[in-house]
Amino acid sequence: MTEFHATLKAIGHVENEFDESTPASRLRSSESTLVLDPELVLGLTGLEAGQRILVLFYFHRAEGYDLLQHPRGDADSPRRGVFALRSPRRPNPVGVTDVELLAVDENRLRVRGLDALNGTPVLDIKPA
Amino acid sequence: MTEFHATLKAIGHVENEFDESTPASRLRSSESTLVLDPELVLGLTGLEAGQRILVLFYFHRAEGYDLLQHPRGDADSPRRGVFALRSPRRPNPVGVTDVELLAVDENRLRVRGLDALNGTPVLDIKPA
Repeated sequence: MTEFHATLKAIGHVENEFDESTPASRLRSSESTLVLDPELVLGLTGLEAGQRILVLFYFHRAEGYDLLQHPRGDADSPRRGVFALRSPRRPNPVGVTDVELLAVDENRLRVRGLDALNGTPVLDIKPA
Repeated sequence: MTEFHATLKAIGHVENEFDESTPASRLRSSESTLVLDPELVLGLTGLEAGQRILVLFYFHRAEGYDLLQHPRGDADSPRRGVFALRSPRRPNPVGVTDVELLAVDENRLRVRGLDALNGTPVLDIKPA
């Protein structure tokens, strides 16, 4: 490994009704709430409903990784490299999803299209 | 802050000819090499020249952040929230850029469009 480590902190977390048993296809079409640390709310200034944002989050349920994995865990699909997949099981288990911002209410952001489970730590929000 | 911390490690680093004095516009149109840790090279299986990839990287030169910042450091532009900006000065200084993969040669990936400086730690590569 290239010798570099960085410690990241959550800026908030995801609230929705999904857990490990929820199919990914249902997650992508569903709505979630990002609950931001109230101390950071000024950082939302300028974000507007209707725009697209990138949400960076930590795959807190992922355990370890393999360099080669079956896409979607489907044993019938040939294995591919982890960097050619969106699998949560990766060297740095960070997800990035482009979502639609539906509404902002103080420290709560309503979004559509986030494929993250309830309780997922949020690491960053950026304009898409 | 939501109580969660995660430690990330570099999977490689960026090689190019750019430093802090390089205008962002020149970075975006230029070529860079991602040098991956040789132990991870199997993880590239399935990536092909011509496709687009997301590169996650650590803004190693960023120092601290303000919740409100002038876009591009331009004092004439009204300040916006850090989550409405792509500024490197953010609570978790991680950048995400969608780049074109030009070539893969063992552990070296040639890419076009990466707005990261020489020596930047790379955290992840994903299909865009």
